[in-house]
Amino acid sequence: MVNQQQAQAIVDQYLSSLETGDLEGVMALYADNARVEDPVGSEPLQGRAALTEFYNKAVAMVVAARSQGPVRTVANELVFAFEIESEYDGQRLAIEIIDHFVLNDDDKIIGMRAFWSDANMRPA
Amino acid sequence: MVNQQQAQAIVDQYLSSLETGDLEGVMALYADNARVEDPVGSEPLQGRAALTEFYNKAVAMVVAARSQGPVRTVANELVFAFEIESEYDGQRLAIEIIDHFVLNDDDKIIGMRAFWSDANMRPA
Repeated sequence: MVNQQQAQAIVDQYLSSLETGDLEGVMALYADNARVEDPVGSEPLQGRAALTEFYNKAVAMVVAARSQGPVRTVANELVFAFEIESEYDGQRLAIEIIDHFVLNDDDKIIGMRAFWSDANMRPA
Repeated sequence: MVNQQQAQAIVDQYLSSLETGDLEGVMALYADNARVEDPVGSEPLQGRAALTEFYNKAVAMVVAARSQGPVRTVANELVFAFEIESEYDGQRLAIEIIDHFVLNDDDKIIGMRAFWSDANMRPA
């Protein structure tokens, strides 16, 4: 269970780690057996090895990550809106996302779902 | 399953109905046996009678409802950030919220969870 400041610190570390390519900074937020569904509707990934592989690609692609408004947090859940800019194969895309994190008793992310679709993408 | 335009139309109707005090406009979006947890962590309400009672109070209090960015929708789920202004007992409050809707096969809301806490409130 986190308060607003602790929840915002998790979000800030998540976004700044994505932006600066800090894989360890992202992975430090996750529990070992965490489950990630990004985007919602895709096959969920589970466990440190699968998440490390996923975020290794993600941090290489993300060149900017901007919060859109404050985190909303209740008990062990938090949601927040943000926008990333990614660069891949010379193309730069902006994607507007809302993430939902569920934390375990150690305040590590045990479940993550990222809501976005092609309709939330545009050239950047 | 809704596309971006249909999802945004649901959100727009939800927010405009809250703002204009249109109880029927809100309730038309809901399935009969829908479940509402607002805020997340509170005892969920279920069924048309309970929801009508809840929204009857809500539409009376909400004086403004503003979208914060586009809806993110995948399959039968949608999330969106918004801000309401409520007036109660002469006091005006702004609350920043993120809602999560799950739709049934008829594109009616069958599950709703509203993420916000005291930390997302401020005098307006």
